[in-house]
Amino acid sequence: MYSFACDYLEGCHEDVLKALCETNMEQQPGYGADRFSKEAVRKIREACHDSKASVWFLNGGTQTNQLIIDSLLQPYEGVLAAATGHVNVHEAGAIEAGGHKVLTLPTHDGKVAAADVAAYMQRFLADDNHDHMVFPGMVYISHPSEYGTLYTADELNRLSEVCRRNHLKLYLDGARLGYGLMADGTDVTLPLITRLTDAFYIGGTKAGALCGEAVVFPGGNEPAHFLTRMKQHGALSAKGRLTGVQFSVLFTDNLYGRICRHGIKMAQQIRQIFAEAGCRFYIDSPTNQQFVILTNAEIAALKQYVDFGFWEALDETHTVVRFASGWATTEDGIEQLRRAVRQCIRRN
Amino acid sequence: MYSFACDYLEGCHEDVLKALCETNMEQQPGYGADRFSKEAVRKIREACHDSKASVWFLNGGTQTNQLIIDSLLQPYEGVLAAATGHVNVHEAGAIEAGGHKVLTLPTHDGKVAAADVAAYMQRFLADDNHDHMVFPGMVYISHPSEYGTLYTADELNRLSEVCRRNHLKLYLDGARLGYGLMADGTDVTLPLITRLTDAFYIGGTKAGALCGEAVVFPGGNEPAHFLTRMKQHGALSAKGRLTGVQFSVLFTDNLYGRICRHGIKMAQQIRQIFAEAGCRFYIDSPTNQQFVILTNAEIAALKQYVDFGFWEALDETHTVVRFASGWATTEDGIEQLRRAVRQCIRRN
Amino acid sequence: MYSFACDYLEGCHEDVLKALCETNMEQQPGYGADRFSKEAVRKIREACHDSKASVWFLNGGTQTNQLIIDSLLQPYEGVLAAATGHVNVHEAGAIEAGGHKVLTLPTHDGKVAAADVAAYMQRFLADDNHDHMVFPGMVYISHPSEYGTLYTADELNRLSEVCRRNHLKLYLDGARLGYGLMADGTDVTLPLITRLTDAFYIGGTKAGALCGEAVVFPGGNEPAHFLTRMKQHGALSAKGRLTGVQFSVLFTDNLYGRICRHGIKMAQQIRQIFAEAGCRFYIDSPTNQQFVILTNAEIAALKQYVDFGFWEALDETHTVVRFASGWATTEDGIEQLRRAVRQCIRRN
Amino acid sequence: MYSFACDYLEGCHEDVLKALCETNMEQQPGYGADRFSKEAVRKIREACHDSKASVWFLNGGTQTNQLIIDSLLQPYEGVLAAATGHVNVHEAGAIEAGGHKVLTLPTHDGKVAAADVAAYMQRFLADDNHDHMVFPGMVYISHPSEYGTLYTADELNRLSEVCRRNHLKLYLDGARLGYGLMADGTDVTLPLITRLTDAFYIGGTKAGALCGEAVVFPGGNEPAHFLTRMKQHGALSAKGRLTGVQFSVLFTDNLYGRICRHGIKMAQQIRQIFAEAGCRFYIDSPTNQQFVILTNAEIAALKQYVDFGFWEALDETHTVVRFASGWATTEDGIEQLRRAVRQCIRRN
Repeated sequence: MYSFACDYLEGCHEDVLKALCETNMEQQPGYGADRFSKEAVRKIREACHDSKASVWFLNGGTQTNQLIIDSLLQPYEGVLAAATGHVNVHEAGAIEAGGHKVLTLPTHDGKVAAADVAAYMQRFLADDNHDHMVFPGMVYISHPSEYGTLYTADELNRLSEVCRRNHLKLYLDGARLGYGLMADGTDVTLPLITRLTDAFYIGGTKAGALCGEAVVFPGGNEPAHFLTRMKQHGALSAKGRLTGVQFSVLFTDNLYGRICRHGIKMAQQIRQIFAEAGCRFYIDSPTNQQFVILTNAEIAALKQYVDFGFWEALDETHTVVRFASGWATTEDGIEQLRRAVRQCIRRN
Repeated sequence: MYSFACDYLEGCHEDVLKALCETNMEQQPGYGADRFSKEAVRKIREACHDSKASVWFLNGGTQTNQLIIDSLLQPYEGVLAAATGHVNVHEAGAIEAGGHKVLTLPTHDGKVAAADVAAYMQRFLADDNHDHMVFPGMVYISHPSEYGTLYTADELNRLSEVCRRNHLKLYLDGARLGYGLMADGTDVTLPLITRLTDAFYIGGTKAGALCGEAVVFPGGNEPAHFLTRMKQHGALSAKGRLTGVQFSVLFTDNLYGRICRHGIKMAQQIRQIFAEAGCRFYIDSPTNQQFVILTNAEIAALKQYVDFGFWEALDETHTVVRFASGWATTEDGIEQLRRAVRQCIRRN
Repeated sequence: MYSFACDYLEGCHEDVLKALCETNMEQQPGYGADRFSKEAVRKIREACHDSKASVWFLNGGTQTNQLIIDSLLQPYEGVLAAATGHVNVHEAGAIEAGGHKVLTLPTHDGKVAAADVAAYMQRFLADDNHDHMVFPGMVYISHPSEYGTLYTADELNRLSEVCRRNHLKLYLDGARLGYGLMADGTDVTLPLITRLTDAFYIGGTKAGALCGEAVVFPGGNEPAHFLTRMKQHGALSAKGRLTGVQFSVLFTDNLYGRICRHGIKMAQQIRQIFAEAGCRFYIDSPTNQQFVILTNAEIAALKQYVDFGFWEALDETHTVVRFASGWATTEDGIEQLRRAVRQCIRRN
Repeated sequence: MYSFACDYLEGCHEDVLKALCETNMEQQPGYGADRFSKEAVRKIREACHDSKASVWFLNGGTQTNQLIIDSLLQPYEGVLAAATGHVNVHEAGAIEAGGHKVLTLPTHDGKVAAADVAAYMQRFLADDNHDHMVFPGMVYISHPSEYGTLYTADELNRLSEVCRRNHLKLYLDGARLGYGLMADGTDVTLPLITRLTDAFYIGGTKAGALCGEAVVFPGGNEPAHFLTRMKQHGALSAKGRLTGVQFSVLFTDNLYGRICRHGIKMAQQIRQIFAEAGCRFYIDSPTNQQFVILTNAEIAALKQYVDFGFWEALDETHTVVRFASGWATTEDGIEQLRRAVRQCIRRN
């Protein structure tokens, strides 16, 4: 049964796999000193328009968030995030395990508003007791957000500005960054993110790689002894070549963008299928995750033909479900979904 | 130039790579729920003769040591280890970052002696102030050790017994376990380790895999909510299939043993080459790491033909160097070494 | 100028001071093995009607919260608390520094409702992804709360029941416990708290002592090696006699209760003074903290005569201020307040 | 029975107690903003000849070591200490609980040698793998050491120099500092320590105070937001007056020096008593701790008259015991010891 349950159901893109095969027996030094990692760094710097950027490769998203947040914050600082942010809800307390509090802001369809950051800082500084409180040291955002929504360049600019004015670092979680960059209508680019943030990562695990996230510190402004910090967090791979090869391929001839664009197109077809069936959407997502409101009966029926994810109960008879496409989604899978929807959902 | 610098210079064994290719586009759920991980668990249980063993897959050795030690110890407990142990020297303080002290024992060619554990515990318990000290909660050993040496079954039995008598967990770091199990003359087997320890891991990264270590909790006696602990440590992979596929292949028809046996044979040839050249060995290692004493002039000469690792300075004119073989070492590489040694080292 | 700014403005009760003087040169062993600490433990057990209770003495509230929460939780667990709870807002991230997330519940005038705990647990357990989330392991309540409010026996019973049903520890922060126990109309007693919680502390710093909080683990159900945990947290005093003497005196002839009752009477007079002046109260507090709504002009005027604390801005012209009484509040101080209010606040 | 078991058997010096009584009911703000703390800061700055020094008051030694070491180190750094150092042996892992490894150096009667620091750093920097190791970030010394020995000004100068050359902080644990400063023949003064270290503390608990250690950051070079760090560590007292009053008295007319000098004189009498009885000393201590070698039979006999501490077994029939004097040691106590020794030890 074809599954739209998430965007990490398959292995890696065939070009990535091919490169892994071709380079497999080449002897290369460990811990990121291999030539593939060096190539990948160079290519990512180019894509970011930042020849000085520090680029490091890690294995997964939670590991990356934990390490970067811990490395950029002082012990008495916490991280501001949307209440719905991944670091606040779905990382099993990884941030707190590093000693840092997640300070929550209102969520706007998964996004953080510059005005909310400004208001938080104003209240904090005005509070006579703020020396007894956790100092905000960073703003965490995800792009796309956990709800598939995107910041505009203007929103990012305003966030960046409020951060700099308040001496807050700005960190962007790009677990699904490729799908954000390739969405229709977005004016956010990799160079823009590089200009506006203090750190971000380019997600590979959900966008064509077997594993791997590329961390970027714009301008080379990385935490001191970052390799040692990686090691101490258990995040330094002996065979750095594994992520090096993958990101080198993904950033050759914009493979990363091209395969994410495919994921977007598949998402648009998913959207169209449900729209034509008369279904409503929980949120307007331009990226690879589509949140559809279905009746519980429709869900039960559909589940016989295709797989997808539960998101949240809406009322007693309706539920929000998630259909995720990705670089690996096939036309055939979409076709199966189309047939299943026609069969199971009849509204008009 | 052929390199013997370490045992993680190449990618993965061709059978592993083949399986990764063949299964690449199969849709499978994440976080270890994929069918490959389940198969790998089943096969490892069989190899361990323990149908109830808990088996989990992690990415690297430091991550594994950090997570297991942290999960098995109480906050007021530390881990006893040889002063030369990897957790004490080469993990950038990963154990302490989790809040636990490494309590050092004398090293016997990299190994811990049961008698030293007993003596430590006797002194500790006899000390009136031991409530102000770190409680030993575990013994950490590596097999093979960092010096390529091996415990005998008798030594492991005695360690296990002293641990049980003192309510200490026994944990075995098997980063290079395959090379230990396949060494000539060893009487230590996977089922024996399973019977005698509270936790251990079967190293993949240095023995045929792109990445991955298989953690085993004998008898299913795993720490509560281990998956959540993995997540909190940033050690839970979204695509668990990556390690699942690899370990499933490595534990099919004893591929793991066969390729490690190849590494041992290559090490024996390395040993013979240097022995025939009249060189002395720093330590008598039956595993895939050979520690040779060379003059600094010989080292400089050899380095023009093959690569290898610096271990430690012995005196002003002699240095200990390490030659590591592995599953990937080629006959051709050995031949290059033979020619180089003949050319550069003339003693008789 | 007389101050009502907080309840820790003076040293300690005269009887406590007298005992410190009288016992000063008596040689006693350190780290809580002194006879005063032993006496204090015995007296507190009696007051709690629990002859097996474990009782330990610490120096301050944040230290106590941090140590107890850290000792009772597993690493993957967090603590449920009202969003306004001291551990969530005013302890500079001490709980997170120990690796635990504070999971927030709605606040009901500073209190936690059993129904909210039940609902949280139901949502948590129903969430398919809860293995990726922080497990609730404890409910933290403060009695009196940060808003001076009190739980009823019935509310505590319901909280205790929901905790036991959900395998959550119940921990009560009693920084101002004496003022709660001696409030008019309360049906909560020390034995009741002992029966219903897994741990609580009897605050000394704000109720007659120079420093010190008495931690109680009902039934002797204390975390293993608690003294060592105290030491590791930097919370074990060499001169345990300092808190031992103080609590021994405070729990002789119910001095603790009597002096807190004095604080309550003084609070009632404060209340009456403002009520007679026609002022409204922000919250109905039966304890030693009174939250009064004043105009900003009235505040400026009053500040020339007496000191008190800012609580929060209500609107552009009104502010909530706090007047704290305590064991040390004098009739003369109250008289000064009365005169000042008459002078500065004219409403009728 | 008179006890020489340790130097924290009594309460506080009578002048300290008197001041606590006289100031008891004076209303003063909390958290170190009281006038006594401010006076104490001023007086300590004067005693240190450093008008810009930051001075903070904490409750105990382990708390102080934990907080300062954690505040001055980066997460990837550890602290160099003698293997016998208090932070390495007797603080229940408090340093590791903060995430930092204690890196051990050889002990020279409890002291650290500059040459050993230099050699450690040379080896560390020469090691190709040092990025996988804990970076030394600080040298911890205790003065007097745990063995009652003292650094000379020359030794401190050399330690300071090797630290500065290697970018290591130098931190001095002064739990018994007063006894060191007042020892015969020392050329180490408070201003010298202030010039040569990055942080140190002046111990109060063992030198006249009920509790309290005064932390000094020379030149005002304190960690950012130190008050918040104190709070986060559970080390910020609500009633800062308690330590403020005490240190203000101790640093008035050099009371601290005078009472410690008394302790030294008492130690000299202890020394003389045992020397006259023909006993040998384990170590030559010019401070308030005397380490005497006695036969086990002598120990059993003496224990019937006076109390003292076990230090370590020397051989089957001899044991090292510790006699500690202090500010509170009485002439009468010394007389009791003299009589007991005459009765129990007959050698000549």
